[in-house]
Amino acid sequence: MKLYTSRLAPNPRRVRWFMAEKGITDLEVVDIDLRAGVQKSPAYLAEVGLPVAPALILDDGVALTESLAICRYLEALYPEPNMFGRDAREAALIEMWTRRAELLVAHPLMLAVRHGHPALAVLETQIPAISETSLAQAGRALGLFERRLADCRFVGGERPTLADGVLFTGLEFARMVRFRLEETHPNLLRWQAELRARPSAEAGA
Amino acid sequence: MKLYTSRLAPNPRRVRWFMAEKGITDLEVVDIDLRAGVQKSPAYLAEVGLPVAPALILDDGVALTESLAICRYLEALYPEPNMFGRDAREAALIEMWTRRAELLVAHPLMLAVRHGHPALAVLETQIPAISETSLAQAGRALGLFERRLADCRFVGGERPTLADGVLFTGLEFARMVRFRLEETHPNLLRWQAELRARPSAEAGA
Repeated sequence: MKLYTSRLAPNPRRVRWFMAEKGITDLEVVDIDLRAGVQKSPAYLAEVGLPVAPALILDDGVALTESLAICRYLEALYPEPNMFGRDAREAALIEMWTRRAELLVAHPLMLAVRHGHPALAVLETQIPAISETSLAQAGRALGLFERRLADCRFVGGERPTLADGVLFTGLEFARMVRFRLEETHPNLLRWQAELRARPSAEAGA
Repeated sequence: MKLYTSRLAPNPRRVRWFMAEKGITDLEVVDIDLRAGVQKSPAYLAEVGLPVAPALILDDGVALTESLAICRYLEALYPEPNMFGRDAREAALIEMWTRRAELLVAHPLMLAVRHGHPALAVLETQIPAISETSLAQAGRALGLFERRLADCRFVGGERPTLADGVLFTGLEFARMVRFRLEETHPNLLRWQAELRARPSAEAGA
């Protein structure tokens, strides 16, 4: 197996965070430069099928893309520490929080950066209204996580799970547009400080 | 258990499609009217925690939201026919296709409707640029599914899976803004006709 990844990009970083939490060190990792367009080269497209990273190339040559599908496959190969839930109920609740983290915070913040940061104008036609709307949307959604983290040490419960990785890496990426947690969210700040102190914090950064 | 759902809305319809494919008939379903704002009532918020549908209320009162987390929980309770994959590899590939269907097609089409259909102006401040950009993005992504369906009978492989439900219900919802598959996509049209002929096609519509 071989993992194509890329520094700075948010979706590869999710997988690197996940691998660091799992202690996965025996997987070949190949960093590509997305801004240089390596993902659009004929060789890459022939191998992966789409101009995206991350991509996990399985031993029979099948390419698996989508950061969370890659994490789920790695969870099956490296089951401990568990990051997706130990039974159906816990798995459903962790998936719910993972999706909330992705759809309500990480994805809008990604759009805010892509449509708002000058350096990313090479990737698409930037629309300022999308950046502003997305930033406001992510900001509003943080209240939900603040309330959750008043009750739980981590987003998914009492141990780090995929839900934490998605929220944490999403917030870290948004530092590119100077997005910061505010003091009105003390539980999020406590949680962020705890995650920043873990070795996984710098994985893929 | 009790499922809160809503007619016309795309995310509840995913769950209803999934239940119909599974043959789940013994689950209490309560339809609410999202445009009338039932989801914002104190009673609903006290029970569900967020103003969203679908929501599955578990027997101990815990509310599970997020359509695909609900589907995964139902998959554990009603394992046949399998809709999420029978082993780690198949599950990862189905998750990849489900995410592509959601992120590249269904979610942009949902934004196109919410920001483009006059009847939905009650739900948020509509931004025409978001509707147009999203519609174009979904249109471009269909080529990927056309190529996939040239190789496979269904999006996830040779039987219907969650990936089909997400793509199918996303496309059906976009009929509200007159979005149609075109003849340049014969395999998608063949697949859509097959899914429209199944009893699940009208579930939640």
